[in-house]
Amino acid sequence: MLKTSFSKLYRNTNFKQLKNPSLNLRKFSTTLERQNFKKLDEADVAHFKSIIPADDVLTSDLEFYNTDWLRKYKGNSSLVLRPKTTEQISKILNYCNIKKLAVVPQGGNTGLVGGSVPVFDEIILSTTKMNKIHSFDTISSTIHCEAGCVLETLNNYVEEKGYTMPLDLGAKGSCQIGGNLATNAGGIHFVKHGSLRKNCKGLKAVLADGTIIDSMNPLPKNNTGYDLKQLFIGSEGTLGIITECLLNIPAKPKFNDLLLVSCEKFEDILNIYKNIKLHLEEVIYAIEFFDNESLLIQEKHGRISPLEQKYPFYLLIETASNNPENQKILEDFISIIEPLDGVIAQDESQKKKMWEIRETIQEGASREGIVLSYDISLPLQHFYEVVEESRKKVGDLAKVIGYGHIGDYNLHLNICYDKFECDENFHKIEKIMEPFIYDTLVKYRGSVSAEHGIGLHKVKYLDRTQNQNSIELMKLIKRTMDPNNILNPYKVIKF
Amino acid sequence: MLKTSFSKLYRNTNFKQLKNPSLNLRKFSTTLERQNFKKLDEADVAHFKSIIPADDVLTSDLEFYNTDWLRKYKGNSSLVLRPKTTEQISKILNYCNIKKLAVVPQGGNTGLVGGSVPVFDEIILSTTKMNKIHSFDTISSTIHCEAGCVLETLNNYVEEKGYTMPLDLGAKGSCQIGGNLATNAGGIHFVKHGSLRKNCKGLKAVLADGTIIDSMNPLPKNNTGYDLKQLFIGSEGTLGIITECLLNIPAKPKFNDLLLVSCEKFEDILNIYKNIKLHLEEVIYAIEFFDNESLLIQEKHGRISPLEQKYPFYLLIETASNNPENQKILEDFISIIEPLDGVIAQDESQKKKMWEIRETIQEGASREGIVLSYDISLPLQHFYEVVEESRKKVGDLAKVIGYGHIGDYNLHLNICYDKFECDENFHKIEKIMEPFIYDTLVKYRGSVSAEHGIGLHKVKYLDRTQNQNSIELMKLIKRTMDPNNILNPYKVIKF
Repeated sequence: MLKTSFSKLYRNTNFKQLKNPSLNLRKFSTTLERQNFKKLDEADVAHFKSIIPADDVLTSDLEFYNTDWLRKYKGNSSLVLRPKTTEQISKILNYCNIKKLAVVPQGGNTGLVGGSVPVFDEIILSTTKMNKIHSFDTISSTIHCEAGCVLETLNNYVEEKGYTMPLDLGAKGSCQIGGNLATNAGGIHFVKHGSLRKNCKGLKAVLADGTIIDSMNPLPKNNTGYDLKQLFIGSEGTLGIITECLLNIPAKPKFNDLLLVSCEKFEDILNIYKNIKLHLEEVIYAIEFFDNESLLIQEKHGRISPLEQKYPFYLLIETASNNPENQKILEDFISIIEPLDGVIAQDESQKKKMWEIRETIQEGASREGIVLSYDISLPLQHFYEVVEESRKKVGDLAKVIGYGHIGDYNLHLNICYDKFECDENFHKIEKIMEPFIYDTLVKYRGSVSAEHGIGLHKVKYLDRTQNQNSIELMKLIKRTMDPNNILNPYKVIKF
Repeated sequence: MLKTSFSKLYRNTNFKQLKNPSLNLRKFSTTLERQNFKKLDEADVAHFKSIIPADDVLTSDLEFYNTDWLRKYKGNSSLVLRPKTTEQISKILNYCNIKKLAVVPQGGNTGLVGGSVPVFDEIILSTTKMNKIHSFDTISSTIHCEAGCVLETLNNYVEEKGYTMPLDLGAKGSCQIGGNLATNAGGIHFVKHGSLRKNCKGLKAVLADGTIIDSMNPLPKNNTGYDLKQLFIGSEGTLGIITECLLNIPAKPKFNDLLLVSCEKFEDILNIYKNIKLHLEEVIYAIEFFDNESLLIQEKHGRISPLEQKYPFYLLIETASNNPENQKILEDFISIIEPLDGVIAQDESQKKKMWEIRETIQEGASREGIVLSYDISLPLQHFYEVVEESRKKVGDLAKVIGYGHIGDYNLHLNICYDKFECDENFHKIEKIMEPFIYDTLVKYRGSVSAEHGIGLHKVKYLDRTQNQNSIELMKLIKRTMDPNNILNPYKVIKF
């Protein structure tokens, strides 16, 4: 039988209000030089007004478009274009390519690596006005929509019909599906639905010279030459601008259940993971991991944990299916894995409380002070090693917490410094950690960016995950498809 | 309650032995001209012997390597190389690229579109000797193996451990995983596992100039630049030669069940399909379709159908899960869809009989005479239209049958002519059908090749599925990555 010392699920779990909440502001400084693009002039602006209505050629109040989500990156663009059709984008890019005007495509501008804002004065091409849902075919469960549709809008639209979007992100209220595709966005149910790449049935994209690539055949099987849409997915707008898509839309499962288990050793976590794959494959919906330090830091900053008894490691396992016995599947699973302790949520309120434990970790961390946060992935065998090693490296200088989407090997490693200023000690931590983390990733063939992409922030770390031959091939493809380098320059690959 | 007039599942269902079984031999004639590649000489052969052992530099008895699976295409190569390592392939290609020697990569040589044999005298680079399984990690359920591993060997290997390969093909006893990846092979459980592209976690491939691209990071989430492995998957050896891979290996479900249902109208089939997606998504394992004409042609040629009562359309629905109530899920499903008639297999023998109905269709067709067989896919709304329209087009000249993997919109359309010689009437049929089928595919954005690829056979039809801009981009990529066009020339794209 399952012990359930997790008995305080009804306790108040809110963070205490902080009197002086500090924002974690660390401005980005770049040593980049502006490449030799043409400077925008009035004739250019007039030309764009001949392509799209003057209302959508913005030349003032561009603060929002120039500043990234984290307020860490700030560009200097003096022009935002908001086209409504693929053909307009084609005409805009064709002109920019001839004139050598640089362009940064922008969706909801919710990226976390500075990929969606200008570095200098690039023209911002916003897909905000391309927000039509063309159709939703319930026979093939496929949605046809434009790049500027907001993820949450799409989700509300399909949920009414008994379906759900194949991705779910914190930024869903603002992020756009075109940006999601361009960054191959991940999210909480990745372990169930797979990447957005896997759920993309068709794409329309515009190349740097304005050529429209229409790969909108809505077919799961279509072995006719190179699968061109793969080039645009995940390339962060550097090879083309995604304008429309066809996405696979899964049915919304009728039953959801949630199990929280605890373990003494990380090895036990791996063993449970293996058993999830063997026994729960068809129902697994999310697998989230956190360590005890992730809980302690929440408690330190006023969020009383609902878990009375503490253990070193936790797994939150969500299953979803149309099987009325969905909860029993988890009960049976417990008898297979025999965790140290655990609890199955008995109602929606308990589920919410259990999810909150996981979801408030990042907030807990940021209340400590400045956080060095790494979105990395690495083989599960080495998943926690990097947390333990980091702890040894920083010693008493900072707290290290490890949590994340372990179902997809995605670790959110946080180094939490207990001050809000970048003082000498903080720089010491940075100096220790950056080479250590990235060197470890090289050793284990991990990824410097599991889901956030490269953008501007991680360009210098690309070679820790991709070897030189691969980077050279990427450059070759970029040069071939965008010889003037007008599409999202300075991002992803360093030239 | 379900009617079960499908009561004769135990009747003998073997085909009668034919006295003079005729092979469906229709030799391919090409109007292609040999491109200006270097002719192989003794110095070249001597050089290859300095890279790999002389035993694996074959210059005689090359019939098997020169002839394709259907015995329709025959090349004239005088050299087969069987390297054992990626590095050897790198050296071979580097030499070939410098010397401008053309190369055709070959796996199990089971392709159906002439992609794996030489057109003229291309050197055959066989991956047969690259058949090591490096590791199978049961924590991440990932296999690491070489391109030459035979699919069935891999399947036997993982099945012992409770897993199954994510694809299952008729040719599994001969086809190699490298060839499967190069052609993005489909198969019967595509609707469950998705494409091989989706199950490929990592790849190693060699470019035309010998550069090794190592994308073997075994990470589900890795958003670090362009996903290069996508270029090699499905490009049929024209952009690089796949030498190693990391594949996702799903657990083998404990319970399998099979439902055969019949319908009066194709619309009812679509309605069932929609309900499968809504209610069976987590357990669906295969969805196969056939029409009554597919059964009648089997019966005509001596295979007595186990189905006494006939209906226009049939669906074979397989579910698989770890749920002991798996069969009950199908019973519940029947009450939702209310088919005209149907039966759930009650034991393994019944399952086998039911699968045989579907699996012997192609043999039934080929006993009629010459078969024009199309492996196409198209939106489900138009799936059966093309069968009905074809029937109208050919009239009494031939029988038209429609069946296939409807779960992936994959139709096997067969025009069955009742003679074994290509006489005047047959040419008349061909003349009617070829433009009609491919024009219909253009109209509905279907695919001229759902799973078999383009190879040599369908090069001239590529433009029915891919528009001109897409083909131009494919050419640009091919020219960039293989400027001397040495990798599998004449295939996929026409230059």
